[in-house]
Amino acid sequence: MAIGMKAMPFSFVAHFLAVVGAILVLIWCISFRGGLAWEAPNKNLIFNSYHYRIVIAIFQLRTRILTSVYLVLRKKLKKLIHLVLHAIALILGIIGIYTAFKFHNESNIANLYSLHSWLGIGVIILYGIQWIYGFLIFFYPGGATTIRSQSLPWHVLFGLFVYILAVGTATLGYLEKLTFLQNSGVAKYGSEAFLVNFTAIVTILFGVFVFLTILSQPPQEDEYGYSAI
Amino acid sequence: MAIGMKAMPFSFVAHFLAVVGAILVLIWCISFRGGLAWEAPNKNLIFNSYHYRIVIAIFQLRTRILTSVYLVLRKKLKKLIHLVLHAIALILGIIGIYTAFKFHNESNIANLYSLHSWLGIGVIILYGIQWIYGFLIFFYPGGATTIRSQSLPWHVLFGLFVYILAVGTATLGYLEKLTFLQNSGVAKYGSEAFLVNFTAIVTILFGVFVFLTILSQPPQEDEYGYSAI
Repeated sequence: MAIGMKAMPFSFVAHFLAVVGAILVLIWCISFRGGLAWEAPNKNLIFNSYHYRIVIAIFQLRTRILTSVYLVLRKKLKKLIHLVLHAIALILGIIGIYTAFKFHNESNIANLYSLHSWLGIGVIILYGIQWIYGFLIFFYPGGATTIRSQSLPWHVLFGLFVYILAVGTATLGYLEKLTFLQNSGVAKYGSEAFLVNFTAIVTILFGVFVFLTILSQPPQEDEYGYSAI
Repeated sequence: MAIGMKAMPFSFVAHFLAVVGAILVLIWCISFRGGLAWEAPNKNLIFNSYHYRIVIAIFQLRTRILTSVYLVLRKKLKKLIHLVLHAIALILGIIGIYTAFKFHNESNIANLYSLHSWLGIGVIILYGIQWIYGFLIFFYPGGATTIRSQSLPWHVLFGLFVYILAVGTATLGYLEKLTFLQNSGVAKYGSEAFLVNFTAIVTILFGVFVFLTILSQPPQEDEYGYSAI
């Protein structure tokens, strides 16, 4: 299913969309939702920081997926970068979910009833399993050669699945939060509604370009060249 | 990115999940939401029929994607089945969207403000473009050989993208509808909430198995064998 185009242009667009998406979320939190905070009388500020962190986590996720595609470095170093970026994204994701619980508990909102929350927990668990499996089989202590080669395509496929699920869960989060706000009086066709919907669309487009980068041709192979870690 | 497993078992699971999903949606509509109708004093019944139709459309979508993978038939006949099933899914999708407008207009609900509605319209437009392009280039009058071979991987990729977007849009729809219902008093941890969330998860799992079927090895190739139409 690989496509015969160079990965670099897709990767640049993906990075651009990542920056645009991060700025849009910041504008939303600061201009419309009162800012960011960890401890605050206005509990919504805690939720904002959660939103912001989840988005950062997803963008980290992208960065480390791309790492395995276009960085021209020694294989061992690339693997380490891949591993560390994944670990950062995983920790940020866990902080993000913790902040959601904190916000709910301090505001007396029920936990874990919505599809967004179920999938969010699912993504983090699957992501953690993927990370631990990758660490044990491909890094330390490392599996037998046959196990490594047989599980590599599944590792890539499972990673892509978790990635699509993460983008989908973020999109569900935008819709859920905006629906709550609209039930509390935020205008259905107002600038905030458009901002949030467009941020969701930027998130989806960004996911598309990460996908295109992965399916495209990586930079020229040499002894330090590409390998799908 | 192909995986070395046979497509058939994945395809069976996908079909099974499709049936389970369809039954769950029917149970939701009939046991919890009062049934299905096209004209009714209770406008919600119109919306139910819309939900049901959209789900059928997605399951048709699956069927015709699988058609190109495991049906062992003459190439020309397979292409025709692929085209006709896509056309049916497209028409059902359009009816589904029309029913949403009908429900909104007859119930004085605003149209096209939510992310679900935006993406739904986007999916149908992209799907229509994909169908028309496929018809003109691969069926009648048919493009030059170079155009056909160059655009085939993009046709497959674009089809997969629209498919993932359709599954994602359906998932957004489940969350949106349930959030509205929970704002109107439906229990957050009640049986209806669990039913809808599980239906959404079945829809996602079904999408995963369609994906696995596409990436797996099709049945044995012979003169009537597989071609990625």
